[in-house]
Amino acid sequence: MSSRTVFFISDGTGITAETLGLSLLAHFDGIKFKQVRLPFTDSLQKARDVLPRVTAAQIEDGDRPIVVMTIVSPEVRELFQKSGALCLDLFGTFIKPLSVEFGQQPAQSTGMARRTATDEYHDRIDAIHYSLGHDDGVTEAGMDEADVILVGVSRSGKTPTSLYLAMQFGIRAANYPLIPEDLERMALPGELAQHRDKLYGLTIDPERLHRVRNERRPGSHYASLENCRKEIRAAETLMRREGIPWLDSSSRSVEEIATMILQHKKLK
Amino acid sequence: MSSRTVFFISDGTGITAETLGLSLLAHFDGIKFKQVRLPFTDSLQKARDVLPRVTAAQIEDGDRPIVVMTIVSPEVRELFQKSGALCLDLFGTFIKPLSVEFGQQPAQSTGMARRTATDEYHDRIDAIHYSLGHDDGVTEAGMDEADVILVGVSRSGKTPTSLYLAMQFGIRAANYPLIPEDLERMALPGELAQHRDKLYGLTIDPERLHRVRNERRPGSHYASLENCRKEIRAAETLMRREGIPWLDSSSRSVEEIATMILQHKKLK
Repeated sequence: MSSRTVFFISDGTGITAETLGLSLLAHFDGIKFKQVRLPFTDSLQKARDVLPRVTAAQIEDGDRPIVVMTIVSPEVRELFQKSGALCLDLFGTFIKPLSVEFGQQPAQSTGMARRTATDEYHDRIDAIHYSLGHDDGVTEAGMDEADVILVGVSRSGKTPTSLYLAMQFGIRAANYPLIPEDLERMALPGELAQHRDKLYGLTIDPERLHRVRNERRPGSHYASLENCRKEIRAAETLMRREGIPWLDSSSRSVEEIATMILQHKKLK
Repeated sequence: MSSRTVFFISDGTGITAETLGLSLLAHFDGIKFKQVRLPFTDSLQKARDVLPRVTAAQIEDGDRPIVVMTIVSPEVRELFQKSGALCLDLFGTFIKPLSVEFGQQPAQSTGMARRTATDEYHDRIDAIHYSLGHDDGVTEAGMDEADVILVGVSRSGKTPTSLYLAMQFGIRAANYPLIPEDLERMALPGELAQHRDKLYGLTIDPERLHRVRNERRPGSHYASLENCRKEIRAAETLMRREGIPWLDSSSRSVEEIATMILQHKKLK
């Protein structure tokens, strides 16, 4: 298998360059990609400091490296463009058509730095604290403030989804477990019925739930395939009966689940 | 102020298109951008269903809309390219040079769908549960498993940073508050001194801390500017004395703080 080094270079965190870069590289098979993220490369001096790593990769791999970059400064971009690497220049490629379209010169500052001062950023931080404070049904207080309340059996994916909704989208996402007692009574726990319009359910393939729970409490009744099947069957019956929309989290990423919930609930 | 509609269209969640698109648009001032995300546009039929929204935006705004897209299917991309919008075609633009570089046709499936099955994805989910279970010093058990342990006074940004480290990078990040008792004793709480190499501190501007705490507990001693100043001064003295590296979270986003910690701790 051939090997290539991929540099994600940015004057900010490099997270956007890495995310887009990885989704581009995912289209190609049979190549081992060695990933290097070089964040905060925000001056010619810092660019010159890291440049030898880019040129050294060519010698090491035998093939030229890939550089995926989100860099505002044209001078810094030019340095990497002349390095011999294959450069995917995200800002250089797209800023120009936008500049023409808007009849405006682009500002020479990074987008990220501006973001923390905004209301939207504070909403996100508040939402994280809210979602954390309303994880796993720890309290019923403040449910009025929830944008969405996730329900499902233990380890169906509620917690990561709630936190992602908060962190990425500023959504206040509470979550509430459906425990065996609820499933036996065939009734929603506590005062959830009062908030029916905010409820969204997660279900999961019983075999997968069994594996996930078994990692946590090996050999327990809680983790047994039989119990997982029983809980899932009961939870789905309950959600159907209560008119709660739901999705199966089994083969979906947190990003996908969160996006589907936003779309269904028409949030934001 | 002129107004433009920006569509983030993807066959996946559209989160990458939105993130990159927003960082491009942040370079332009004086334009009000109306944002519309159209995720899961993964067939010609779905593309045709949403196309009227794109064409309607031109009539409404008087200017053609911007489309930022991450779409694998060339047919679907073509539909939007012919819509009259200004298209920033992230996959179309960069898949081709990569395909030439690797001497390989790109796979016709979305990158995202492949991701959930990987070990890396499971590590991320595990890290989220770990970080959540070790938030705010709830337990000292399992500190051996931490990749990093954040310390700082209450509301200095530890919790969002820990969760982001877990969610984005799969880092097991515990966090531990420095409470007034620790600061009076001028000693690290509990058994943290045993894990000194994993510690990383967050500090914050006292005025900002005062505002943040005042939202939570208005008029309290806890939130008073005087107390915030005192706590911050003591925490910084303690961290300096104990040789704990730290950064100021005041004007940095969670993404930036997390990236700086990764870089400093040489994690991943």
